[in-house]
Amino acid sequence: METGLKEKCVEVFRRIRESRPLVHHITNLVVTNDNANTMLAIGALPVMAYAEEEVEEMVAHSQALVLNIGTLTREVVRSAILAGKRANALGIPVVFDPVGAGATAFRTESARTILQEVKVAVVRGNAAEIAALLGRETRIRGVESSGEIPDSFHLAREAGKILGTTVAVTGKIDYVSDGERTTMIQNGDFLLTRVTGTGCMTTSLCGACVAVEKDALLAASAALGFLGVCAEIAASSSRGPGSFRYTLFDVMYSLTEGEFVQRLRVEVI
Amino acid sequence: METGLKEKCVEVFRRIRESRPLVHHITNLVVTNDNANTMLAIGALPVMAYAEEEVEEMVAHSQALVLNIGTLTREVVRSAILAGKRANALGIPVVFDPVGAGATAFRTESARTILQEVKVAVVRGNAAEIAALLGRETRIRGVESSGEIPDSFHLAREAGKILGTTVAVTGKIDYVSDGERTTMIQNGDFLLTRVTGTGCMTTSLCGACVAVEKDALLAASAALGFLGVCAEIAASSSRGPGSFRYTLFDVMYSLTEGEFVQRLRVEVI
Amino acid sequence: METGLKEKCVEVFRRIRESRPLVHHITNLVVTNDNANTMLAIGALPVMAYAEEEVEEMVAHSQALVLNIGTLTREVVRSAILAGKRANALGIPVVFDPVGAGATAFRTESARTILQEVKVAVVRGNAAEIAALLGRETRIRGVESSGEIPDSFHLAREAGKILGTTVAVTGKIDYVSDGERTTMIQNGDFLLTRVTGTGCMTTSLCGACVAVEKDALLAASAALGFLGVCAEIAASSSRGPGSFRYTLFDVMYSLTEGEFVQRLRVEVI
Repeated sequence: METGLKEKCVEVFRRIRESRPLVHHITNLVVTNDNANTMLAIGALPVMAYAEEEVEEMVAHSQALVLNIGTLTREVVRSAILAGKRANALGIPVVFDPVGAGATAFRTESARTILQEVKVAVVRGNAAEIAALLGRETRIRGVESSGEIPDSFHLAREAGKILGTTVAVTGKIDYVSDGERTTMIQNGDFLLTRVTGTGCMTTSLCGACVAVEKDALLAASAALGFLGVCAEIAASSSRGPGSFRYTLFDVMYSLTEGEFVQRLRVEVI
Repeated sequence: METGLKEKCVEVFRRIRESRPLVHHITNLVVTNDNANTMLAIGALPVMAYAEEEVEEMVAHSQALVLNIGTLTREVVRSAILAGKRANALGIPVVFDPVGAGATAFRTESARTILQEVKVAVVRGNAAEIAALLGRETRIRGVESSGEIPDSFHLAREAGKILGTTVAVTGKIDYVSDGERTTMIQNGDFLLTRVTGTGCMTTSLCGACVAVEKDALLAASAALGFLGVCAEIAASSSRGPGSFRYTLFDVMYSLTEGEFVQRLRVEVI
Repeated sequence: METGLKEKCVEVFRRIRESRPLVHHITNLVVTNDNANTMLAIGALPVMAYAEEEVEEMVAHSQALVLNIGTLTREVVRSAILAGKRANALGIPVVFDPVGAGATAFRTESARTILQEVKVAVVRGNAAEIAALLGRETRIRGVESSGEIPDSFHLAREAGKILGTTVAVTGKIDYVSDGERTTMIQNGDFLLTRVTGTGCMTTSLCGACVAVEKDALLAASAALGFLGVCAEIAASSSRGPGSFRYTLFDVMYSLTEGEFVQRLRVEVI
């Protein structure tokens, strides 16, 4: 995968713009609007549908499914599993964001149940969330991991092995691993930590990428690199989190392939 | 209606600013915030209230009711019908957005149930959604209609006749018809398709307009023309969907009557 | 408290930046995203968690709890009471926003139930909402109080006495009272009335402030003054509610202590 890795990432986003995949989201109340706008900015199509009466039918029209438990209820978890199982049956890739796993038993258990019931192509979380999925003790404050967890690289690789899927651990440096292969992405900006839901936005981007790219490791690496590059550009013309946030959508919409490949810092490690 | 149609549209928005109608929304999770801000930008007052325990009481204080099934649940549909019936009993106009009708059976059936139970002043949707209300086969991807449906004009007129209400079919060109009279609106910008919920925003504007104008055809035409004109102005100083979106609120707030009438392209056809 | 009141307000926000309190929100659908971004802008950490299965566990990790009934359901009220009681047991301060109290019986009764069941450090509302808590007849349109209620000062003081808590009555001029001591804050801008949820944003800020300052009167006064000062600065470089809103987040993020103290108009009365 190493050869031309950056060009392959660029290619993933070119395919999104060309094929306009429909990405079904069952996501949280904080980021619903941002997630939909993220999809539209890059040329994908979002659909937000939550009711158990319709999620199986809606996901059947889609090219990917994003599950996010940021403001979970029993109903949301039930719909997520229904939609996920149907996606599995139809060969539609599923991306999962275990927001706040480790913060409450309800979140940790719901996340594990989803992973047991649904075959997931990519799990995207911060280090504390991913560690919680493996049953590790973590220090978590709300939905933010606190302190630096020293070894996200090993965590990603181990989680990839144990969970049998591709795991993206995001933080100051991002790691993506399927247990065998691992990539490291060194893009991003501090302001991403001062706007809510930028992690969830990354997960949405993973959804659009797996819709057009079967290699989940490549797809997730492209998604993380893309958001990081856009964040760097947006931050350079922002005066704070308000202007950063709207500029991020402008940049996701208008980023050229040349800029993307030039700034992208992704490598196999 | 032809004579002075543009001036009449301008007059509708003047009346909104002067009388500040309260518009009760039972809307979807993606656009809740944007819909409320749309009302405030034009001088109307929004209230978002969903619980079946209170919707009948809340709508009684209001000058219009907006129903939108973008993220419907059984509870939302039940509240929509309760509020709609009460609005009907009190002579308060109701606007309905059948988001995603045709995409799932749950949406199509819920939309039809609402139309059976509630007398609606304006239905606002894209061509695929309106066609679904008439029982037509449509090609729909999520909540976006796919492909150009050639004859939105005839669709609007037929839907107006069959549904016995005013129907607004929005797309590249918008048509509004009550089955007899039809208007065409040719304002707007491509960036409206790259921000989520701009259709729902149009529906909100229809709500504010029917609150102050009894002729629903005129009210809906004014709403569609207003959003289209504001979108053109906002797009001219935007660098993408992020800056377009915030500028749209600035323009909705500050549009002068002179600019509105000068750019407005509405006609009876 | 008079001596150095402005400096004490500045100190409250310095402590937020230094200690990064986690503020658990059970808030409404309109402002979920804005409330989270408000916390991040000032250096606090938000967590939005609503399910009765987890609110008691989540609030135990938090330094303050914000309850807001803007889009209440029976479930939200139940979760609010569960979380509130747990916060009380743990000595974690609770802030309450009775959005729309007086507009429907369901809101008025839910607000009173919460105040009976949960010991609240600060209640923040407009004059009509606070009057409704005292059982007064009010003129309310949706969630906005209509007309000027002449004597917010006396209302705040009386509510403070009767409710036995600190009450912040916001409007053109803000008053905060614990029944004995009262402060008046004269900052703010007209554009705050043209963006939805700025009242709820103030309530969130009260949450962050009580997390780091035990004197609830000082904490609430600091929160109101901070939003007012930021609004003045943001308005001065805005062209309408769209640019005002994103600029407000920039200013909340970057306001210097010097600017804050210079513009702050807070006094004991």
